[in-house]
Amino acid sequence: MKIGVLGPEGTFSEKAARKWNSRAEIRYFEDISDVLEAAQKGEIDSGIVPVENSIEGSIGMTLDYLLEYDVKVTGEVVIPVKHCLLGRRGEDIRVILSHPQALAQCRKHLKSMFPGAELRAVESTARAAEMAAKARNTAAIASEESARRYGLTVLEHSIADMKENFTRFLVIGKQFAPPGGSDKTSIIVYLDENRPGALYDLLGEFARRSIDLTKIESRPSKKALGDYLFYIDFKGHFSDPLVREAIENVKQKTGMLKLLGSFRTADSQMDV
Amino acid sequence: MKIGVLGPEGTFSEKAARKWNSRAEIRYFEDISDVLEAAQKGEIDSGIVPVENSIEGSIGMTLDYLLEYDVKVTGEVVIPVKHCLLGRRGEDIRVILSHPQALAQCRKHLKSMFPGAELRAVESTARAAEMAAKARNTAAIASEESARRYGLTVLEHSIADMKENFTRFLVIGKQFAPPGGSDKTSIIVYLDENRPGALYDLLGEFARRSIDLTKIESRPSKKALGDYLFYIDFKGHFSDPLVREAIENVKQKTGMLKLLGSFRTADSQMDV
Repeated sequence: MKIGVLGPEGTFSEKAARKWNSRAEIRYFEDISDVLEAAQKGEIDSGIVPVENSIEGSIGMTLDYLLEYDVKVTGEVVIPVKHCLLGRRGEDIRVILSHPQALAQCRKHLKSMFPGAELRAVESTARAAEMAAKARNTAAIASEESARRYGLTVLEHSIADMKENFTRFLVIGKQFAPPGGSDKTSIIVYLDENRPGALYDLLGEFARRSIDLTKIESRPSKKALGDYLFYIDFKGHFSDPLVREAIENVKQKTGMLKLLGSFRTADSQMDV
Repeated sequence: MKIGVLGPEGTFSEKAARKWNSRAEIRYFEDISDVLEAAQKGEIDSGIVPVENSIEGSIGMTLDYLLEYDVKVTGEVVIPVKHCLLGRRGEDIRVILSHPQALAQCRKHLKSMFPGAELRAVESTARAAEMAAKARNTAAIASEESARRYGLTVLEHSIADMKENFTRFLVIGKQFAPPGGSDKTSIIVYLDENRPGALYDLLGEFARRSIDLTKIESRPSKKALGDYLFYIDFKGHFSDPLVREAIENVKQKTGMLKLLGSFRTADSQMDV
């Protein structure tokens, strides 16, 4: 079993992949789009990509790629994120490196503790640790694992502004996943008509069947400012008759519907 | 008239501010939150902050601050974004600096033209130009204005993957704006009940009155993963009787409603 993730070693994506399958062989990619491309080509069995953080919100790039690539969503993994400040003891901190989302998640704390430090964004938390290990007066926000891997000291544990911090990852593959008992379905829709109530009508197809929406997110259609696609997650598997009926009806009301897949919800995995 | 924007000089925020009021005195801030804080304290007459790009989507940080700070939205400004590649002729490009959103908007093009170059994120496009001017083998993605300001050459014009590229800015102040003829209203709501159809019911208050939604966006409530606030924009001014009625009814159905304000739409300004 080969799983592709955003590298280098030590990212939260790798952690998610190990939680999904502890014995998988992990392949590292430079970019989220490379993971999806490899999944589309069948070069990996699954890709695992971040889609949403409980503080910072959706990872827009991942949502965009889900539309672009011919892949299915076959699962989700939720992992707690603990951002640590890594560096060397006794050294003045002038630069703090991390992924933009991690910097955003720790912003208030860093601003009050290191008012003069420059916050600099890099591609991943692991890369931040790797770079901090080679530079002077530089700290990184990354995982405890990265401290070990890159020979840094954990100067401070858990420095995020909000302590409840989770990231949800999607598992990407070539085939739809079968029903697992407690499933969720993801679709992307584009409403080609711009009349008042169009979105309301669409959501009615779910409400009328008591299908619970778990998420609705808008993304730019990239055609014009103010023109959106909707990413909708709801409970149930697409093979359930009621869910299938809702999807069929929504399809007739929209300009485009992409069924990303149905998969077991992360909480149901935790219950096991 | 003092307008606060994200600095340094030469950012797209400054451009938006000059479009909003060409004679205003511009004050530069280090961070979007600093602009909102200054507006809240009345240290500036208006703040102008980016809220949405037609390719990359919403600026989550701005949405979060709109909830946090005691300010009103009093206007919007839309400006075309033209990302240029700035550098020095005849030099090998090994590093390309820009704001994360600009890097994302030019990703495909950069990947094909400069496959080996490292893309490095910095705080703003203007800062990228400033840094590129001081480093070797380094280019920046920024505005044409930044090339002039920091003594760089425009190596390539308009390098974004999609040519239609607009950023929408919000004008922030202390007082609600009066009706202007063709207005839009922005609210933030939190649905405290998690039953199927709750969002559908809420949108019904607008659909039933033929009030046109122009945007709906979810943001994490930051309480738990999968728990969201909704940012909703719709046509009309909050002083219109129908709009007021819809807002009142939505308020009764939700755990929290924040009226951000009503303001003239950007297209109506362009019509003038």
